[in-house]
Amino acid sequence: MTLALAWAERGMYTTSPNPHIGCVIVRDGAVIGAGVTQQVGGDHAEIQALKDAQARGHDVRGATAYVTLEPCSHHGRTPPCADALVRAGVGRVVAAMEDPNPLVAGQGMARLAAAGIAVSSGLLAEQAYELNIGFFSRMTRGLPWVRMKTAASLDGMTALHNGASQWITGERARADGHAWRARACAILTGIGTVKADDPQLNVRGIDTPPQPIRIVIDSRLEIDPSAKILQGGGTWIVAAVRDAEKGAALRALGNEVILLPNASGKVDLPELMRELGRRQINELHVEAGSKLNGSLIREGCVDELLVYLAPLLLGDAQGMFALPALTHLSQKKSLKFHEVKQIGADVRLLARFIHSSTPT
Amino acid sequence: MTLALAWAERGMYTTSPNPHIGCVIVRDGAVIGAGVTQQVGGDHAEIQALKDAQARGHDVRGATAYVTLEPCSHHGRTPPCADALVRAGVGRVVAAMEDPNPLVAGQGMARLAAAGIAVSSGLLAEQAYELNIGFFSRMTRGLPWVRMKTAASLDGMTALHNGASQWITGERARADGHAWRARACAILTGIGTVKADDPQLNVRGIDTPPQPIRIVIDSRLEIDPSAKILQGGGTWIVAAVRDAEKGAALRALGNEVILLPNASGKVDLPELMRELGRRQINELHVEAGSKLNGSLIREGCVDELLVYLAPLLLGDAQGMFALPALTHLSQKKSLKFHEVKQIGADVRLLARFIHSSTPT
Repeated sequence: MTLALAWAERGMYTTSPNPHIGCVIVRDGAVIGAGVTQQVGGDHAEIQALKDAQARGHDVRGATAYVTLEPCSHHGRTPPCADALVRAGVGRVVAAMEDPNPLVAGQGMARLAAAGIAVSSGLLAEQAYELNIGFFSRMTRGLPWVRMKTAASLDGMTALHNGASQWITGERARADGHAWRARACAILTGIGTVKADDPQLNVRGIDTPPQPIRIVIDSRLEIDPSAKILQGGGTWIVAAVRDAEKGAALRALGNEVILLPNASGKVDLPELMRELGRRQINELHVEAGSKLNGSLIREGCVDELLVYLAPLLLGDAQGMFALPALTHLSQKKSLKFHEVKQIGADVRLLARFIHSSTPT
Repeated sequence: MTLALAWAERGMYTTSPNPHIGCVIVRDGAVIGAGVTQQVGGDHAEIQALKDAQARGHDVRGATAYVTLEPCSHHGRTPPCADALVRAGVGRVVAAMEDPNPLVAGQGMARLAAAGIAVSSGLLAEQAYELNIGFFSRMTRGLPWVRMKTAASLDGMTALHNGASQWITGERARADGHAWRARACAILTGIGTVKADDPQLNVRGIDTPPQPIRIVIDSRLEIDPSAKILQGGGTWIVAAVRDAEKGAALRALGNEVILLPNASGKVDLPELMRELGRRQINELHVEAGSKLNGSLIREGCVDELLVYLAPLLLGDAQGMFALPALTHLSQKKSLKFHEVKQIGADVRLLARFIHSSTPT
């Protein structure tokens, strides 16, 4: 299963909105076939592994297939993998987890069992879950898994008051940040960041066909059509006002304007998350300024923080998240550290919000 | 040597101002004696190990002594250990490092070599250095090693604007903080913290005879004689003004007033550090508010930051260090992460200042 997970990781930057799945077929302790989910519309991991075994001249009858997710049982863009495994005559299927997709949800395993194949699931389930946390989020909540990335000094500052902020973290942390961008289906920022930094917000240094979709929160449609983030097209601009002329200019560049106003004339952020779920965004990567970061956190839209801390002090400067002062400690936002790691000279913290109202 | 370091650690909370040293005597691969430096005036580690071997009926002639620091060659409170090792007839001495004490500085090893004993040093030197970082700091710079401890939320906040700050970090981090207090010779805070929290600032939950000396920076001698930190006596109050009456009241409780004004009528912090070096403070543990923290950092008095980050967000609140706004990123204070670790639900960061003026 460890090997199957390693195969699944190979699909980390390419298979979305499909989950990243790996499959390894074993007989008498030897691997006779392996595969990973291909880009959308291509083979699932099981089919790749069966083809691999065939190409290498192996007979899969009676062999064991290790899959990082329950084989599918429904006709989606491709025929059901469970049927293919039955036809191939494998003797046993071990899945890391059941598929949370309501169209599958145990039926894949049931179909295999009905065909007389020995089935089990739950092996290395946690690792399998982490690999596809966005897919599971969308399947179970209809929402993307929202990861907010920020880079700050040890005293929690992201930029000086005059805006100077380049190179707070080191080269390895910045490269690591691109890997997290690459595994996301979409990258979201705000009009403030676009105005201040004019970022491309694409993935550099990692082969990721296709690039994640870029999203700009721009309530008043202030974006300059020459902004780098609009070039090449495909960017979604989320606004709270209608502006026919500006909309036409943006669409002419191949971009899309999504109108999602809330009652106060700003973008309805929770509704945007639901819309992104409908648009099959599994993982959403947020890189924005402290104001939008604060709004997303306040509205409960963020699942985890990816914080790079650089070994320096900036003193009185811009913080990471614009959140209002509390009057009592019980109003604090609680998280749980999921992982802590040194990346080059910097430290990377991954912390997940505890959304329940249980006291901690 | 690993075993000798483990013995040295046993002295972590008791041997100051002596360094914490371990000694293990080995013959034919078997440990025949071991010891650790005792409290001031008691045996050094080598003598303890020789006595241990004797008590266990072993002959140390020709054996190898592993010591975490070069044996001393001078008459201090006790006679030179080098001479004792020569007299005992050990065949070989392996030291983790040379003694930086200018009264020793290689002479211990030289004396052993002159007596025909095989000597070498440098084995696990880094670990030996870390165990006694304060002693080495005092011997080489005349200054204590200054460690500043703070506990903050993930967004770098230590308390709400209204002062609420209790229990930001969890129980394990707080116990860990007491272990760091215990290894210090002195604990320093400011009058602001004394007024706000009335802390005892002692070590609880760890057996540490004697308790670290408590120091309060109190420029205007505002401290209330009923403050908990003054009870039991032995506390040093560092002031910038003379106040005969208040001074007498504090001394009557068994405390000492140290007058160290600078030109602006505040406590001369760098001069205080030199004074603490003269008073044989090896490690100084600072637990103060953001104002004093900021002053100590600005004046270059701090060697490392011990930061506990709790998995929560407090928003607009009190930061860790009151440092002025910068106009250019090049004015930042640079550090190096020395260690990063999860302690219970919190994260502990140990970061050391890069005091040189080399650009990083």
